Amino acid sequence: MYSEDRLILVTNDDGITAPGISALLEIAQKFGKVIVVAPDKPQSGQGHAITISEPIRLKENHMLGDIEAYECSGTPVDCVKLAKSVLLKNRKIDLCVSGINHGSNAGINIIYSGTMSAAMEASIDGIDSIGFSLTNFSHSADFSAAKHYAEIIIKQVLENGMDKSQLLNVNIPYLTVDEIKGIKVCEQGAANWSEGFLEAKDPRGNNYYWLTGEFLDHNPVNDKTDIWALKNGYVSVVPSWHNLTKFDAIKEFSFLNNEKIRV
Amino acid sequence: MYSEDRLILVTNDDGITAPGISALLEIAQKFGKVIVVAPDKPQSGQGHAITISEPIRLKENHMLGDIEAYECSGTPVDCVKLAKSVLLKNRKIDLCVSGINHGSNAGINIIYSGTMSAAMEASIDGIDSIGFSLTNFSHSADFSAAKHYAEIIIKQVLENGMDKSQLLNVNIPYLTVDEIKGIKVCEQGAANWSEGFLEAKDPRGNNYYWLTGEFLDHNPVNDKTDIWALKNGYVSVVPSWHNLTKFDAIKEFSFLNNEKIRV
Repeated sequence: MYSEDRLILVTNDDGITAPGISALLEIAQKFGKVIVVAPDKPQSGQGHAITISEPIRLKENHMLGDIEAYECSGTPVDCVKLAKSVLLKNRKIDLCVSGINHGSNAGINIIYSGTMSAAMEASIDGIDSIGFSLTNFSHSADFSAAKHYAEIIIKQVLENGMDKSQLLNVNIPYLTVDEIKGIKVCEQGAANWSEGFLEAKDPRGNNYYWLTGEFLDHNPVNDKTDIWALKNGYVSVVPSWHNLTKFDAIKEFSFLNNEKIRV
Repeated sequence: MYSEDRLILVTNDDGITAPGISALLEIAQKFGKVIVVAPDKPQSGQGHAITISEPIRLKENHMLGDIEAYECSGTPVDCVKLAKSVLLKNRKIDLCVSGINHGSNAGINIIYSGTMSAAMEASIDGIDSIGFSLTNFSHSADFSAAKHYAEIIIKQVLENGMDKSQLLNVNIPYLTVDEIKGIKVCEQGAANWSEGFLEAKDPRGNNYYWLTGEFLDHNPVNDKTDIWALKNGYVSVVPSWHNLTKFDAIKEFSFLNNEKIRV
């Protein structure tokens, strides 16, 4: 499947030194010419943040051998924007892959995830794009099963195309290749975080708050969701996009459709 | 319409000192008891970013007279999370209003906007939520028409409910009350940014990049969109949500639905 005419942009949110991006690079290189533009530090939870009130730095990184790689002081979305308009000005990006994220991006996590937001940013510009995440936060997690399935998915997507959705949210359960039951195309699950904050005092006696929380599945019996798939040993794939309209609600709000009403 | 049993959370992304949040407060106070939790500095473009790798500060702010108000060192989404789980632990929030943003959040801007992400964060937790934006970036913009229409919309929504979507993206064109033609319930327009970066050298001779760009409307004749409504003198209202699944694409990717395939 390798083609030297295929240009693949690789990014993530855990930063250019994270083991997850090395794992993804290993797979991406089997399919085409690779360019890496990734944050110079961890940027988890950055969502779709962009840097607008300060300048961004971009530095070549030689850590990855022969691979053309850059580290960027901005957010994951900044990385994609810089790759597109500064580094690859006149070249078509055939595929953007983001990750492999250290930790799940299933359910509502897609909204908070820098990994998925980077992939989404590419898809907004019409670039086929896949975000990969492993359901294990550890720096020393084993990425073998994730790599195995990332390769299968990239191969199949390149063969079959991504006509109706240019963004896939892929999550891989933390199991061995043999334990994983297969791949399941799903919808985003209705699971979200029940927040807490660790509350404590700093050395000067001032309060501070530190986000913590518990992930709650609101519909554990719905076997159509990514949350269900992961719990049941499947790799989940959710075709996604950036249009947040709740189309079925447009009619319901027609009471607002008014010309020149007055309070 | 005032009820002292109605608790309204007010936030924004331009920061607690922005004129837009004062304008919104003026209106929100007509409907219920108000609490303000807003960033202590401008946080535009923060999207759905959350602060996870450092502690967050929360300070009472007495600038707003009798109103219970807090400034927060975190992102707009952090503000909502802290309001919910630290400040209002056991109290039901009846409505969250965010803004009034200095600048449009129509089309793709909803994804980048801290104002809309704060509103969305509340809606994820089942709180009825409305983000308001004025299509003018200036600090000294005139908010009279925006206030006029924010009041109409809040009133109508409180009377009619928000059953099918708990998140509304409201954009108000920068016109006078008399010039505005009315309110139009829409879908998110297919308009996005064509990026550029200002590239220059800092005093040490190192390159830096600063995001710039042009907003492009890809389908200017589609009169169902918020972009069209604003261009034609209407206040746009887009019922929105946080499920990014592209449902009509699930079937298309069924080639990935496989048990135990091998590369």
